[in-house]
Amino acid sequence: MARKANAAFVESSLDHYKELTIARLLEYIPDREPRRYLYDLVPSYPTRPGKGLRPGLCIATCRAFGGDIDDAVRSAVAIEMFHNAFLIHDDLEDGSEKRRGGMTLHTEVGLPIAVNVGDALNVMSITPLMENRDVIGPTLTWDVLMEIEHMVRQSVEGQAVELGWVRDNVCDLSEQDYLRMTLKKTCWYTCIHPCRIGALIATGEPDYLDRFNRFAYYMGAAFQIKDDLLNLVGERARYGKEILGDIWEGKRTLMLIHLLNVGRPHEKERLRAFLFTPRVERSRRDVEWVFGRMRHYGSLEHARDSARDLSLAALDEFDVAYANAPESDDKRLIREIVAYMVDRDL
Amino acid sequence: MARKANAAFVESSLDHYKELTIARLLEYIPDREPRRYLYDLVPSYPTRPGKGLRPGLCIATCRAFGGDIDDAVRSAVAIEMFHNAFLIHDDLEDGSEKRRGGMTLHTEVGLPIAVNVGDALNVMSITPLMENRDVIGPTLTWDVLMEIEHMVRQSVEGQAVELGWVRDNVCDLSEQDYLRMTLKKTCWYTCIHPCRIGALIATGEPDYLDRFNRFAYYMGAAFQIKDDLLNLVGERARYGKEILGDIWEGKRTLMLIHLLNVGRPHEKERLRAFLFTPRVERSRRDVEWVFGRMRHYGSLEHARDSARDLSLAALDEFDVAYANAPESDDKRLIREIVAYMVDRDL
Repeated sequence: MARKANAAFVESSLDHYKELTIARLLEYIPDREPRRYLYDLVPSYPTRPGKGLRPGLCIATCRAFGGDIDDAVRSAVAIEMFHNAFLIHDDLEDGSEKRRGGMTLHTEVGLPIAVNVGDALNVMSITPLMENRDVIGPTLTWDVLMEIEHMVRQSVEGQAVELGWVRDNVCDLSEQDYLRMTLKKTCWYTCIHPCRIGALIATGEPDYLDRFNRFAYYMGAAFQIKDDLLNLVGERARYGKEILGDIWEGKRTLMLIHLLNVGRPHEKERLRAFLFTPRVERSRRDVEWVFGRMRHYGSLEHARDSARDLSLAALDEFDVAYANAPESDDKRLIREIVAYMVDRDL
Repeated sequence: MARKANAAFVESSLDHYKELTIARLLEYIPDREPRRYLYDLVPSYPTRPGKGLRPGLCIATCRAFGGDIDDAVRSAVAIEMFHNAFLIHDDLEDGSEKRRGGMTLHTEVGLPIAVNVGDALNVMSITPLMENRDVIGPTLTWDVLMEIEHMVRQSVEGQAVELGWVRDNVCDLSEQDYLRMTLKKTCWYTCIHPCRIGALIATGEPDYLDRFNRFAYYMGAAFQIKDDLLNLVGERARYGKEILGDIWEGKRTLMLIHLLNVGRPHEKERLRAFLFTPRVERSRRDVEWVFGRMRHYGSLEHARDSARDLSLAALDEFDVAYANAPESDDKRLIREIVAYMVDRDL
């Protein structure tokens, strides 16, 4: 019962912040040509169902430290635009078929136009960041830009590492390699910078922000591992991506890395050969075999345990990061997001 | 003889500004991981042979109005990073094989990593734009950012239009449609904003900049038409792309649009069917037929005449745009670039 109430609180709070962020995001789409090949396509991913973790963390952190929603919302919009641009390019880089319950954009409109819509969302994120100036002043606007600069740099670096592993069939990977990649690819833009930017806007103190790094790194890593688990065991209709899609894609998840490390030599050999096969030539039988070996060796339990350990570490760090914030619904929301992210089933 | 001297002056001056811009650009590539899948690949396009038109226009305009190279070079680096990001994505969107005498990046390293290297170059362009602050001060830095915001927006809009024409096999196009698309896709980032940003940094007067728009639009359109002509009739080794590549790709050049408008009904039908065929299924025989019809109907001469008319209009507008700049080598360079761009054979 307690867990259900928690989930309802987290979901309704995140929904609220997500809705107001997306409403503002849509206002940045100009009512002019080119519509059919660009601006009609920009809302596709942002308006699909999603948890709204990034704008939620940014706005709630800002409010928890005494800031206003309106001061944070343009930055939340920019982060959400960047996130959606990243998803569009990530989907076509991975050859994914489904995203948030619909077809991936490149599957719908073709690769060339999808690449350009992703570029457009990146380009469009400059506008709300520049509009910050009239609302939070030039100094904070500049400090937010510096946060964004670091954020987007980390993301392309993390993406490069993961794409390289898949392209060159890198199989000699440890849990540490996975966590380093996830820090760069996911944690900075999904958790660390949303929290930092929210606190920055509320407090005006850039020197204060490093205390969010550990908390939001642990939270982001737990979130990513849980997301990868749901790709294997989630309900297709609720989860919104193709189930076992990560195995089809050869994605280096914690479960795959676990299996690569604990399997017997002939199993490792078969797994390596499977991963070396081009995606389109992989068979359902082999994908099911990989999943079966993961279950046999407890790779899913191992990942579940890791996510839980990371979320417990995040809760410890929460008390450090948010020590100066008085109790409030927003502070409670952020604390409860941690448990929610690990318990959720979508 | 006079023309040769002109070409030597233009080429050596552009080379000089290009070399110092690329040297600075390379300094922004961090010496750290991920190397093999990211930072080792970032220099690929920037270090290939190229004319250096964009940094040349930016720096020469700044100097023509009394500014320093060092004040303009960070902005020139950012424009050049954006240009190379745009080329990488453009090449994979069009399925091009060659670029600046080498293989296109996606052909060399695969599509996923190439998309991400393009994203990285966009991301990296933020850094020199932020470093502007310590050199030209916060006000001018902000004004340059506003120029960049407009520049990148126009480019993705123009790209969307052109990609849409190819995807949906749009054949009912006029010369006006072509020029509008080229203004957006090419002229803003290739000529208009480089000139505007150079003058802005030298003069500190944003209100002064609109007078560059016509000049640099005419120049950019003439440049693009000439570039498309060289794709049909240039020497492969010197030009650096696959000859007739634009016909293979179904690119809506001024020559193709001319042919679509002047051909006889059965020829238009065959051309339309050719353009409807997926690129990989087009035959060399059909590509040669299209090229033959263009020559038969004078499509190349028509485009050559258009480029010349545009360059003459640019020369008229040059006197308006650069009226307040005293005579100097840099002012002369910009004037001579106009004729050079139309006369060049690479």
